[in-house]
Amino acid sequence: MEPRLSAVTLWVSDLDRAVGFYRALGLEPTTVVPNEVAFIQLNGLVLCLYPGLAGDAGVEAGGPGLSALAYNVREKGEIEGVMDAAVAAGGRVTRPAHDADWGGRSGYFADPDGNLWEVAWNPFWPIDAEGRTRLK
Amino acid sequence: MEPRLSAVTLWVSDLDRAVGFYRALGLEPTTVVPNEVAFIQLNGLVLCLYPGLAGDAGVEAGGPGLSALAYNVREKGEIEGVMDAAVAAGGRVTRPAHDADWGGRSGYFADPDGNLWEVAWNPFWPIDAEGRTRLK
Repeated sequence: MEPRLSAVTLWVSDLDRAVGFYRALGLEPTTVVPNEVAFIQLNGLVLCLYPGLAGDAGVEAGGPGLSALAYNVREKGEIEGVMDAAVAAGGRVTRPAHDADWGGRSGYFADPDGNLWEVAWNPFWPIDAEGRTRLK
Repeated sequence: MEPRLSAVTLWVSDLDRAVGFYRALGLEPTTVVPNEVAFIQLNGLVLCLYPGLAGDAGVEAGGPGLSALAYNVREKGEIEGVMDAAVAAGGRVTRPAHDADWGGRSGYFADPDGNLWEVAWNPFWPIDAEGRTRLK
């Protein structure tokens, strides 16, 4: 893994309420897909508000504080290598790499303490030379 | 709040094990304070591995997946304004702003879904014009 983070995803129960909360703090979403997900562009990474996180990550139903860090790879074929390295180092796969319905490819692992990471290939979110992810 | 993130802190039960795990994935810590905390420099923000997160955040004992996002302010006096705005928007304070023993000032709030945020002033971690936090 390169030392960078592409996104942080927070599980939220009510997307409209969550968008209103972050908007009130000055974090205006770049994109809101009603009833699905919201994306807020931060400094080279994206804050995602996502009611569907638990199902997407292959873990039990979302609850307070459920979140996932996302590491986006540059090439689609890199995902399995990162997942395998995580398992070899003591992590566990919560959802194997799979082609996702949004057009990319994604898998999730948990570190030895249960912290979730998504490893994804997202052709719609470019990564610059310095490792920053910017929404188009 | 400016649209940026200063750090992501993951609760870990065993700091040495966690450092070993992330090192095996290529995320070499910049700083490890034995038995206390480890910092990994990412793209303009810091990944912190911190067994003491729950106590620091004023929440119940750490468990799998406990994490906090950190927003560092540029001036010490800005913390209360962010905390007040979070409460006004529907969040709740889990630990009021206080001078911390590491030389900065810190407070924590939870968003309406229980996701934790630390609002901190850290004179040792400079923030550049583009909002990136770099460890010295």
